[in-house]
Amino acid sequence: MTHRTYELDRAHVFHSWSAQASLTPMVIESAEGSHVVDDEGRRYLDFSSQLVYTNIGHQHPRVVKAIQDQAATLCTIAPQHANAARSEAARLVAELAPEGMDHVFFTNGGADAVEHAVRMARLHTGRRKVLSRYRSYHGGTQTAVNLTGDPRRWPNDYGSEGVVHFFGPFLYRSEFHATTEQEECERALEHLERTIVMEGSDTIAAIILETIPGTAGIMPPPPGYLEGVRALCDRYGIVWIADEVMAGFGRTGTWFALDLYDAKPDLITFAKGVTSGYVPLGGVIISEPIYATFADRVYPGGLTYSGHPLACAAAVATIETMKDERIVEAAATLGSDVLGPGLADIAAKHPCVGEVRGVGAFWALDLVADPQTREPLAPYGGSSPAMNEIVGACKKNGLLPFANYHRIHVVPALNIAHDEARQGLEILDEALSLGDAHVAR
Amino acid sequence: MTHRTYELDRAHVFHSWSAQASLTPMVIESAEGSHVVDDEGRRYLDFSSQLVYTNIGHQHPRVVKAIQDQAATLCTIAPQHANAARSEAARLVAELAPEGMDHVFFTNGGADAVEHAVRMARLHTGRRKVLSRYRSYHGGTQTAVNLTGDPRRWPNDYGSEGVVHFFGPFLYRSEFHATTEQEECERALEHLERTIVMEGSDTIAAIILETIPGTAGIMPPPPGYLEGVRALCDRYGIVWIADEVMAGFGRTGTWFALDLYDAKPDLITFAKGVTSGYVPLGGVIISEPIYATFADRVYPGGLTYSGHPLACAAAVATIETMKDERIVEAAATLGSDVLGPGLADIAAKHPCVGEVRGVGAFWALDLVADPQTREPLAPYGGSSPAMNEIVGACKKNGLLPFANYHRIHVVPALNIAHDEARQGLEILDEALSLGDAHVAR
Repeated sequence: MTHRTYELDRAHVFHSWSAQASLTPMVIESAEGSHVVDDEGRRYLDFSSQLVYTNIGHQHPRVVKAIQDQAATLCTIAPQHANAARSEAARLVAELAPEGMDHVFFTNGGADAVEHAVRMARLHTGRRKVLSRYRSYHGGTQTAVNLTGDPRRWPNDYGSEGVVHFFGPFLYRSEFHATTEQEECERALEHLERTIVMEGSDTIAAIILETIPGTAGIMPPPPGYLEGVRALCDRYGIVWIADEVMAGFGRTGTWFALDLYDAKPDLITFAKGVTSGYVPLGGVIISEPIYATFADRVYPGGLTYSGHPLACAAAVATIETMKDERIVEAAATLGSDVLGPGLADIAAKHPCVGEVRGVGAFWALDLVADPQTREPLAPYGGSSPAMNEIVGACKKNGLLPFANYHRIHVVPALNIAHDEARQGLEILDEALSLGDAHVAR
Repeated sequence: MTHRTYELDRAHVFHSWSAQASLTPMVIESAEGSHVVDDEGRRYLDFSSQLVYTNIGHQHPRVVKAIQDQAATLCTIAPQHANAARSEAARLVAELAPEGMDHVFFTNGGADAVEHAVRMARLHTGRRKVLSRYRSYHGGTQTAVNLTGDPRRWPNDYGSEGVVHFFGPFLYRSEFHATTEQEECERALEHLERTIVMEGSDTIAAIILETIPGTAGIMPPPPGYLEGVRALCDRYGIVWIADEVMAGFGRTGTWFALDLYDAKPDLITFAKGVTSGYVPLGGVIISEPIYATFADRVYPGGLTYSGHPLACAAAVATIETMKDERIVEAAATLGSDVLGPGLADIAAKHPCVGEVRGVGAFWALDLVADPQTREPLAPYGGSSPAMNEIVGACKKNGLLPFANYHRIHVVPALNIAHDEARQGLEILDEALSLGDAHVAR
């Protein structure tokens, strides 16, 4: 049967972000908590949360039951109607958002959330251009992938989407020749303002930022940066879209990564953690002034499954479970007590670890071939023997890592047991020795 | 409780395609088969299939159970892995498609299916432009809504998406001054070829067509048109994308609307009926030459929930149920024995009915203020008192209709009981008398 699953996959499934002929996907048969099991019965500790979305772990019984119950009641209803699951999910999501952000437009995932947030910003301002940072990911549809600041944009970029990229704060690989976080922050804001002025502030509808960039490297912005972005948006009449698709719903040890800062965006996009991916769901949380724009004017966008009851029921159960089991608080403790100190120890031991960054259950190891020059252990957009060896060793020893170019991200379920997290760190520790062998001496 | 559902909806839910302040959504509490029930216990016969997607009706127990079982086993797994539900869904979908279309890229819905199909076509051909017809709908994301040939595109159109619209065959409102279907077909193909030549055939990646345009008016193309499109695509090296999001999965009395014709596209987009919307799912079916383009070259697109196990399990159960219960055949019989003759009778009685078009469970009444001039009963992109009266009368009498501008579409579940379908037609018949009162004499 599992051989059949593999054969059918190779015969019929076209995979994301891949050359199809060379794929040898792992067959996953079951999963529970922080573990997945392959077709040979091997258990893996999931340090990836798949694509950083199973925030409450796999197969949480309460959310599974909520899905089953909603399926028995009402799987689906069109978006023009009202429905109990949809109403309650919207209430719960809005309640978590900053004050004055009371309305939720539900989508199927993060990419279409970004597409719709951009549309709202464009129509609200009457402007078209959107600014986005290099080293970012915003989704796979055409507008979203053009907002993205990583190599996946390149083959899709016809120069026509009205997107301009700028550099964000990132001290370890500073674009601004800064030596302190404060200097990086000031210079990054100066650079952003200069970009706004050079592009023409009246042409810019929105600035979109992952609050903490995720796949691009988990770079928490320095204190004051997002507050500075807010001030620039106010000064120039620009909408700030906070992309919380990956960082939101507890990943950072707070409900939104935004809660770590003192600045309020105009739109928030979310997906992934809102249901832990058990049913596809995303959305946009909308501030009052933007809602008001569409109070009497038709919002020209929609989708068949907006506010899908099964997905909304999963969101309700996920949020309630996270509250009752204090899973967001657990992520904070995981970061402060286990992952933070554990990764610092690992960094101290391994010359291939250039920097450790992160918070909560959201960490990156920036791996280098040379600690002095900070030359990445794999080229931008590519892989390398060193990285392949590290990832291979992790899997061989039962750990499912999240790797991107020259980085390993440590992004387990927020409620992973501390001893499991430590086991994972041990496997990672051992694997990184293979990286050390590639470091220039 | 239901009052609370309504209040929370108004306080927190942002709705598709609407001005938000004036909405008074109906609260739907439950549904079964061809009926939905509102918060006052009123039952409505669903002649809309919501947004033309609950092809097997509401809450089919076999699909509900499959969702519950998959939820208990494995709700989600990332797209890079292989999984039994995903493999089996891909196999079943590919099996229904024309020969030589063996691979399936799963998305969350129709809009992102279209986004990805266009990307595949662009990268396969090395060209950018996409031709699409006026009177069409292809989805709500930025590229998809610009492909769309209806007024919902207008507020989103910056002239930058590389889309060119042309006129398709539509004898009742012929752009080509034709008087027979054959003449309409020939002239529409001539027009398409001239558009290709004038745009520069080497600049055109794809032609996208709903096999039978849905929301735009259910206009089955005349015999020979799609075969002619195929020939033009072959002549000029253009990819033909058949959008089967609404028409596919039995709606026309065949698995795909394409099966009514003798022409094979290069890509097929689908969504809606594949799971009857019980769990959000869409996708692209890929022909061998386009698959081969991405065999050794990375496909630069993807999404977190591609091939979501819960959605794929719903697709497997839906397809198997449709086969075992002969639901596609039921749609054909429904069209030939009930809806076709019934709507012809209605048209004969009501001067406001200009034309009846359709097949299977997929029918439109083209309503007119003047049968001679064929002036629509509501303006393009708008509503009218006459249309509001008709829709109001349907709802008052317990029928949930699908209305678009000056048209009423009759698009029930494929397996609606014949006596229920006849009841619906009776209510519609009565309501249309209100339209007759607006007809010029």
